[in-house]
Amino acid sequence: MGPFDFSTGTTNPETFPTEELAAAAARTVRKHAVELNTYPGSLGHEGLRRLMAQREFDREGVRLDPERIALTNGSMQAVTLVAEALCEGRDDVVVMEEYCYSGTISAYQGLGIELVGVPVDGRGMRTDALQSALEGLRDEGRSPRFIYVLATYQNPTGSVMPRERRLELLRIARAHRCIVVEDNCYADVHYEGEKVPALYALDDGPRQVYLCSLSKIFAPGVRLGYLTASSAELFERIVERRHDAGPNTLAAAISAEYLGDRLWEHVETANRALKAKRDAMLLALESELGNTCSWSHPPGGLFIWVRLPDGSDVERIEAAAAEREVSFSRGTLFHVHGGGGPYIRLAFGFSRIPDIHEGIARLARSIEETGREPA
Amino acid sequence: MGPFDFSTGTTNPETFPTEELAAAAARTVRKHAVELNTYPGSLGHEGLRRLMAQREFDREGVRLDPERIALTNGSMQAVTLVAEALCEGRDDVVVMEEYCYSGTISAYQGLGIELVGVPVDGRGMRTDALQSALEGLRDEGRSPRFIYVLATYQNPTGSVMPRERRLELLRIARAHRCIVVEDNCYADVHYEGEKVPALYALDDGPRQVYLCSLSKIFAPGVRLGYLTASSAELFERIVERRHDAGPNTLAAAISAEYLGDRLWEHVETANRALKAKRDAMLLALESELGNTCSWSHPPGGLFIWVRLPDGSDVERIEAAAAEREVSFSRGTLFHVHGGGGPYIRLAFGFSRIPDIHEGIARLARSIEETGREPA
Repeated sequence: MGPFDFSTGTTNPETFPTEELAAAAARTVRKHAVELNTYPGSLGHEGLRRLMAQREFDREGVRLDPERIALTNGSMQAVTLVAEALCEGRDDVVVMEEYCYSGTISAYQGLGIELVGVPVDGRGMRTDALQSALEGLRDEGRSPRFIYVLATYQNPTGSVMPRERRLELLRIARAHRCIVVEDNCYADVHYEGEKVPALYALDDGPRQVYLCSLSKIFAPGVRLGYLTASSAELFERIVERRHDAGPNTLAAAISAEYLGDRLWEHVETANRALKAKRDAMLLALESELGNTCSWSHPPGGLFIWVRLPDGSDVERIEAAAAEREVSFSRGTLFHVHGGGGPYIRLAFGFSRIPDIHEGIARLARSIEETGREPA
Repeated sequence: MGPFDFSTGTTNPETFPTEELAAAAARTVRKHAVELNTYPGSLGHEGLRRLMAQREFDREGVRLDPERIALTNGSMQAVTLVAEALCEGRDDVVVMEEYCYSGTISAYQGLGIELVGVPVDGRGMRTDALQSALEGLRDEGRSPRFIYVLATYQNPTGSVMPRERRLELLRIARAHRCIVVEDNCYADVHYEGEKVPALYALDDGPRQVYLCSLSKIFAPGVRLGYLTASSAELFERIVERRHDAGPNTLAAAISAEYLGDRLWEHVETANRALKAKRDAMLLALESELGNTCSWSHPPGGLFIWVRLPDGSDVERIEAAAAEREVSFSRGTLFHVHGGGGPYIRLAFGFSRIPDIHEGIARLARSIEETGREPA
């Protein structure tokens, strides 16, 4: 990745705890030699499952049984596994935010699932539109396999769904007897403002599936996510679909060893630095593009969602930016049907602060230049 | 796992290179901090892909492009991914050895695939029976999505398919334009005798898929396997089905760092100790069960395949053995339709040599006792 790569939601190498993690890695191999020589089972290294149960308790006040947590190869394996387990191979419909994580969209499309997009606003998925979507499906005699929702620091828009709307979403889902799959991978990448409870913490019904990750608070290269479900039956159904002989013991044990007694200290250090990067990017956008574009001010997560001037040719801007070694993600990647307005998504976690300023200046020149020239 | 657990194909904790691996783990974190903060792509850590290309070249004399190797979460992810990519969701048939790896059988059954078992003998899958199976399917207007075959140190029977039969198998597959998926995960767990080339090394056609692993020569807890295919089109088709955002960078980079300059030295050390365990188990079987049972003498791999006396009640023996803290795998687990004769599979990699003697003595008492008592 180059210095002006704003395309991917990677973590911040500048706060990566290299020395402490190196020491933890060495300790882990010594401690867990026998476990490394055996298969992990379908749930994975117990130490990390216990730690993630603690993480959820600390954040949500909900006690999860570590035996009801399955570690996965990043949360993307969980995203995929849930759909593989809950879909039936024909007439499969999933309802999700109209703008949503591109990885989920392409995985689900790859699995042949029909995606129904629900419009979003600055507070996430619009529940009036969700209600209409579910009613529309019901009128056709169909029901979605599940609702997939990123309620906190939504990717790509950065919004947080307020508590009231969460309760409304859950009420609608219950009324339609619909499973809710909550992807909470950004939960702890928090900069300011109130922390809203996760959906699963607001519902004691049997149709909640919850996905989370270490990719955003620790490192995507450890490839560790996890899933839980609010009923044993639902959990078993998902875990039984797993056919990979279990998650990575080495990575899980090293992560548990490092994070074990400093999870929140680690998260706070990472977030402080990420907030500075977010602020730097917001400032650079203001000074470089304040007259022509608008953008989100996300209170958490790793992305800023930018609306370019109407009529912008995003592909041409992308090419012009690439010539200046700047990259971003086109907004259409995050639209369930590849449509939508002239948006781009900027990730701020990876680049150094001076490079953020320089990169946004180069992006601004690319936008201006493309706007001036005839198409 | 207890001291007399002969049920799972784990590696030998006694030759696990704890100190060297601990040092390699620490070096890896320092070397690859930036890579750990980014996503791995769908192929995974380049260093391990290069090393696995070298491994294949050293063993098979075939030069693989590291860009045509995808790392997977153990070879089981590869086993599953291949079927997910090549099956169409209806009328899916896979042809495989009648006795085969239980993980593959249950994964493929879980995916709704119809399995056609081809009888095996001491030289692996019988090619006359393969020919009949393919002709039988053709007469029904059907063709298998692929032939899955474990030609070397076959699990569970321990057989090695001779070169001539390999060529015959490939000839038959070509004639039926059928993809061959070769699972070579035991390839380097070699004790004696001639090394026979892998199927993919004997065929330059476009329909070969090859799976291999670090689970058997290094440690299953690193969850690293890999796949390649003989045409770019076939390779892309399989890799595109992957929706997990890529394999584990941390585990792959640590494994490459440790194995990098001592792969074969490591393998030789591991095999020497495993051969001693195999020999100990063969000796114990001879002295404890020589009058009543027969078994394989595998020149590689991690298992001995034992035929119990006719009329044995394997479930009762299993229960009696469990009371003596001895476990094994029932032969029916490895039969494509859960049938077959009175076989059990004994894994010898995990237990210490004195425990192998003691465990086989306990197993013998369980068999005798169960045979004496009325059912």
